[in-house]
Amino acid sequence: MPGNIYGERFVVVSFGESHGKGVGTVVDGIPAGLVLSEADIQPDLDLRRPGQSIVTTQRKEGDVVEIMSGVFNGRTTGAPVMMMIRNLDVDSRSYEAMVNTPRPSHADLTHRTKYGGYNDYRGSGRASARVTAGFVMAGAAAKKLLKETLGVEIIAYTLELGGLRAEGFTLEDARKNRYSNDVRSPDPELAERMKRMVIKSRGEGDSLGGIVECVALNLPVGLGEPVFNSLDSDLAQMALSIPAVKGVEFGSGFASARLKGSENNDQYYVDKKGRISTATNNSGGIIGGVSSGEPLVYRLAFKPPASIAKKQKTVDLSKRKQVELVVPGRHDPVVVPRAVPIVECCTAIVLADHALRAGFISPVLGGRGKQP
Amino acid sequence: MPGNIYGERFVVVSFGESHGKGVGTVVDGIPAGLVLSEADIQPDLDLRRPGQSIVTTQRKEGDVVEIMSGVFNGRTTGAPVMMMIRNLDVDSRSYEAMVNTPRPSHADLTHRTKYGGYNDYRGSGRASARVTAGFVMAGAAAKKLLKETLGVEIIAYTLELGGLRAEGFTLEDARKNRYSNDVRSPDPELAERMKRMVIKSRGEGDSLGGIVECVALNLPVGLGEPVFNSLDSDLAQMALSIPAVKGVEFGSGFASARLKGSENNDQYYVDKKGRISTATNNSGGIIGGVSSGEPLVYRLAFKPPASIAKKQKTVDLSKRKQVELVVPGRHDPVVVPRAVPIVECCTAIVLADHALRAGFISPVLGGRGKQP
Amino acid sequence: MPGNIYGERFVVVSFGESHGKGVGTVVDGIPAGLVLSEADIQPDLDLRRPGQSIVTTQRKEGDVVEIMSGVFNGRTTGAPVMMMIRNLDVDSRSYEAMVNTPRPSHADLTHRTKYGGYNDYRGSGRASARVTAGFVMAGAAAKKLLKETLGVEIIAYTLELGGLRAEGFTLEDARKNRYSNDVRSPDPELAERMKRMVIKSRGEGDSLGGIVECVALNLPVGLGEPVFNSLDSDLAQMALSIPAVKGVEFGSGFASARLKGSENNDQYYVDKKGRISTATNNSGGIIGGVSSGEPLVYRLAFKPPASIAKKQKTVDLSKRKQVELVVPGRHDPVVVPRAVPIVECCTAIVLADHALRAGFISPVLGGRGKQP
Amino acid sequence: MPGNIYGERFVVVSFGESHGKGVGTVVDGIPAGLVLSEADIQPDLDLRRPGQSIVTTQRKEGDVVEIMSGVFNGRTTGAPVMMMIRNLDVDSRSYEAMVNTPRPSHADLTHRTKYGGYNDYRGSGRASARVTAGFVMAGAAAKKLLKETLGVEIIAYTLELGGLRAEGFTLEDARKNRYSNDVRSPDPELAERMKRMVIKSRGEGDSLGGIVECVALNLPVGLGEPVFNSLDSDLAQMALSIPAVKGVEFGSGFASARLKGSENNDQYYVDKKGRISTATNNSGGIIGGVSSGEPLVYRLAFKPPASIAKKQKTVDLSKRKQVELVVPGRHDPVVVPRAVPIVECCTAIVLADHALRAGFISPVLGGRGKQP
Repeated sequence: MPGNIYGERFVVVSFGESHGKGVGTVVDGIPAGLVLSEADIQPDLDLRRPGQSIVTTQRKEGDVVEIMSGVFNGRTTGAPVMMMIRNLDVDSRSYEAMVNTPRPSHADLTHRTKYGGYNDYRGSGRASARVTAGFVMAGAAAKKLLKETLGVEIIAYTLELGGLRAEGFTLEDARKNRYSNDVRSPDPELAERMKRMVIKSRGEGDSLGGIVECVALNLPVGLGEPVFNSLDSDLAQMALSIPAVKGVEFGSGFASARLKGSENNDQYYVDKKGRISTATNNSGGIIGGVSSGEPLVYRLAFKPPASIAKKQKTVDLSKRKQVELVVPGRHDPVVVPRAVPIVECCTAIVLADHALRAGFISPVLGGRGKQP
Repeated sequence: MPGNIYGERFVVVSFGESHGKGVGTVVDGIPAGLVLSEADIQPDLDLRRPGQSIVTTQRKEGDVVEIMSGVFNGRTTGAPVMMMIRNLDVDSRSYEAMVNTPRPSHADLTHRTKYGGYNDYRGSGRASARVTAGFVMAGAAAKKLLKETLGVEIIAYTLELGGLRAEGFTLEDARKNRYSNDVRSPDPELAERMKRMVIKSRGEGDSLGGIVECVALNLPVGLGEPVFNSLDSDLAQMALSIPAVKGVEFGSGFASARLKGSENNDQYYVDKKGRISTATNNSGGIIGGVSSGEPLVYRLAFKPPASIAKKQKTVDLSKRKQVELVVPGRHDPVVVPRAVPIVECCTAIVLADHALRAGFISPVLGGRGKQP
Repeated sequence: MPGNIYGERFVVVSFGESHGKGVGTVVDGIPAGLVLSEADIQPDLDLRRPGQSIVTTQRKEGDVVEIMSGVFNGRTTGAPVMMMIRNLDVDSRSYEAMVNTPRPSHADLTHRTKYGGYNDYRGSGRASARVTAGFVMAGAAAKKLLKETLGVEIIAYTLELGGLRAEGFTLEDARKNRYSNDVRSPDPELAERMKRMVIKSRGEGDSLGGIVECVALNLPVGLGEPVFNSLDSDLAQMALSIPAVKGVEFGSGFASARLKGSENNDQYYVDKKGRISTATNNSGGIIGGVSSGEPLVYRLAFKPPASIAKKQKTVDLSKRKQVELVVPGRHDPVVVPRAVPIVECCTAIVLADHALRAGFISPVLGGRGKQP
Repeated sequence: MPGNIYGERFVVVSFGESHGKGVGTVVDGIPAGLVLSEADIQPDLDLRRPGQSIVTTQRKEGDVVEIMSGVFNGRTTGAPVMMMIRNLDVDSRSYEAMVNTPRPSHADLTHRTKYGGYNDYRGSGRASARVTAGFVMAGAAAKKLLKETLGVEIIAYTLELGGLRAEGFTLEDARKNRYSNDVRSPDPELAERMKRMVIKSRGEGDSLGGIVECVALNLPVGLGEPVFNSLDSDLAQMALSIPAVKGVEFGSGFASARLKGSENNDQYYVDKKGRISTATNNSGGIIGGVSSGEPLVYRLAFKPPASIAKKQKTVDLSKRKQVELVVPGRHDPVVVPRAVPIVECCTAIVLADHALRAGFISPVLGGRGKQP
């Protein structure tokens, strides 16, 4: 596959560019019989929509999703579901100006080189975070599928932003608070401090990074394969397809490298419901590549966005000499807040794919293959 | 795919269990015309072989590879290359004893649950690190292919072990030293300290984690796809398929979450050869999902092995109550040293796959499709 | 994959239903740099468009294609190309009337059963030949790619219709005449007789079958894989995805079953250009799964369309008893003429995929991976 | 994928060459819990084994299968099952002699060209029918899986050989008789005539073609996908991967091209068990790409083997001029009888894959994902 198709049984096709006609997705493999309409997709799209607050780019897009196929009488039919949004607030002038001065650490030069100069560079083209709107459309459907069939709940939030890290919060805090503040923090007070930090950084023409943590509850035991396509493998693969992600870790993650086995191992006990459970969850809900029944917990590190107003050095490709660059245009001063719903949706895609692969969700909801 | 096949154009099929007849691989997609024999594979296998030093399990295996197909007159033919080793030093008694008391943080319980109890639990079956011998066979061929066609060099080493971290070393140190000491450190002195730490930990019935760093040189610009199947996506996916890996990061990785854009961006300049280069490499050689031409740099966090001699709590599945467990048998007190050649080989597999996908390596070495 | 995605390197995603909002395709893998616009796609779509003559359904559709992504400055960018047409002349009443009386030999009952009744049955939904409009969009791009890079020419035509078989014609006749008559015959005179036969059959409320023959010229030697994914395997797989196809044969095909080896073998000689050629082409241009350099020749058998006005027996699903059915609505009295451009386009998709797989076409036209 | 891996959920990897060390398969996706041993595989292998009668090549091979992985305590574990046989009776001298004089209509020249001369030409290498021993191993497992889970029965037989066609026989005749005569005919008397015809043809240094018909009973409704990966698509793809197959047709097949819709349509009625059935089966058990519940019926046309003793014309590649060739060595005078078990096994592979895809067979027999 050339790199725009993800998955095996819940398959997500990505298309569209930042400044083209629109962006969207074809999802092949949503089981027949799921109640689905634009109303199920739009809320997640709204959460990632730009221009909503001071912490995001000021590009104004309605991002109104249209389902073009695969739904009939309010339910999925088993056929591919095509969904898309139109690009409306497009201004490509700054990209024309920048075409020969690639932004440091942005895809300008690597994509130009890879595609022999034929790539659509306007608004960063396929390298734009706008492409993730398609992930969100697909993921919103995946979330609904997982919730209705298995009761899975997915909660992501900003764990860290600009060095400020949320601590002492509960999952219930995250569930309740994350979408009530602009930075998607589980802690409203910390959210204010983070927001001020973003405003300050933006004022300095700079950008900030951060960490998103994602938790998924109520997974059955047995999602993921033992060798390749382990659940962590596939979540990591998807995570690194989200622009600006530079690292991913599960459970105790990098910290486990400094723990002893006796400290890191999750010892078993029988819980009150008679279920075999673990006292700790350093495994992050995945053992031997397979979901363990404990909460899935993983974290994604986002670098600070590459497009900054501050003066930087780059090379003028036409003159082949170093020049100074001040990136014009509208850019996110930090991607983490907008990334939170994207991470939830991407997680849902991977989980839905594995739930279908492992037979926990049937290709037709409510049974199949019987003559009417 | 059910989870034992990796790749698109350099495809690695994994088979075999720890205590079955053997383990191996079928590699489909090695271009025709590569000089290849067991002598190209055995050295890497020897590097990961158990029982070689005090820091590894004491299981004694010759691990002598046999190429069963796909090579004729000393060269690959374009047909699938099947390679395997036999299991010789197998002792499954401890696993029979443990069958109802799953090891904490090992795959015993998740795989048993996933497979309805039909999984081969002896020696951890498919969850055993022994399965990675197949990765090494495939990866050794990939390394040779990359080297001969593109001049790619891959160097992994133990960056950190038990909290001890190598610092102040050069890539040349790593190239020269890593396989001259038991822990695969770029720093021979630090290696001694690490080794003593492993011996101490083993004496305590405990295990240690660590971090492997991997560098690949001489990659062309343009490996990897912009959206899914980005180079970092696919490397991360493969990394998490290596047993005990709990995290992966590229370039500045998790640290980038605390940097400003102006600190993290890799600014461009024209180097002495007239090539556009970057002053720093926080991107780790991948920008926009695509290799940038700078060295690929990424790190894998390995947790401490789950199988420890120290007393732990688990649940007796037959009695459904908590019991104490002392894991018997032979186990690695740390996997990092043996993981170093595995990481090199796994990296080579991903890079070879992408070099073929992107057309940097042809399906037939030296041209094709012309009548003789 | 759930069944709406074809190919490995030239990947065609199909979406849309007969009476939904539209039908289309996402093509992932068109090399960057191909000059492409709607003007390259529309002519093939026009050839398969319904309502053009007495021999097709009278549904009136403009079928005006829109390219939504993947093209910039008049050339493909290497990103996915999404193309679609809208459905305009939709009248679903007859399908509502028929919902409990499945048409014999149409997908009504099998799809309803497979999808638990959730399938979109209007206009036959995904089982409609309208879905092939997406194949044509993708195939038109494939044809252009093949022609511009390798000089490949693909010529399909109606070999047989209602038992009338074209004989004594040359490939030049087919090239010149097939799109100058309504039935796509290489022989204009025979075309008239075929047309009269269709009119007569339609008048009787019946339908006709036929055979399409397809020839592809200028293929390099070496397209296709020796075992699975042989060129004939993949062409056959695609052929049977075209609605109403019930058989496919290559070269001497079924007739070869009655020949001796000495009669069927294509003996070699050196032609005037010094190229090794064959005196006959019973192999149909494929030997050992691989293109031989001789013209690709294969044939597809189309059954008569299942939707006929003549009275038939079916079962009323609600009453579970046999009833009589007269299929209402607008239907093709024969699919063969409209299938001719579809077969050309589907052939192009398979050939483009294999040309990319085998490295005969590069992922970027005009070279890649060099810094600007 | 490079062309040696088939399937999505029941995945068959093919490896090995005619005169290499052996041939075999890795099957990934056999559900856990299937009772499986060499005794389940060997009978099918014995049926295709060479050297058994006057109608096959005289190469003597024991073809004793060894299961190398994926089975534990007599049952499949869910891990890949590797199976192989060794090549014992290898004599490559005739191929060395022939290396510069490609056999007409054999893969000698196309494979040599495709692989730049690196292909293993001994015994025809990967183009040898010996490769199908791997299909048979995989297919024997698929047959057992289908039978034990769904009660599917697959019956192939020689419908036609050298122009002699079986007529007036019942499926029960085929079930009972096909493996009781050397030519795999449902009709023992006809079998004698066919056998004499083969002996005569062999005496003349020539070869014969024929047609294999295959029937599968007890398929559930709903195997296969409506667009790509329709059941007929995938069966046809697999069929054309069997060496010497030049055509495939389903139900009324090519004959349907000459029928009217009113003749070809399979009208519905309610059978005695209350099941909706069809009076005829011109559809061959597949409607709209999906199994209908009626018997699957399809036919494969086999050309006469290309390797004949009779004098033929070819080109001497070293001298680039036409020469005469008498193919030395041991060859099948007709492949149809040996193809019969191969067709059954290949059919089983496709059906098992689709039964898993559609959820009719679970990845773990007897349920999954529950804690012990």
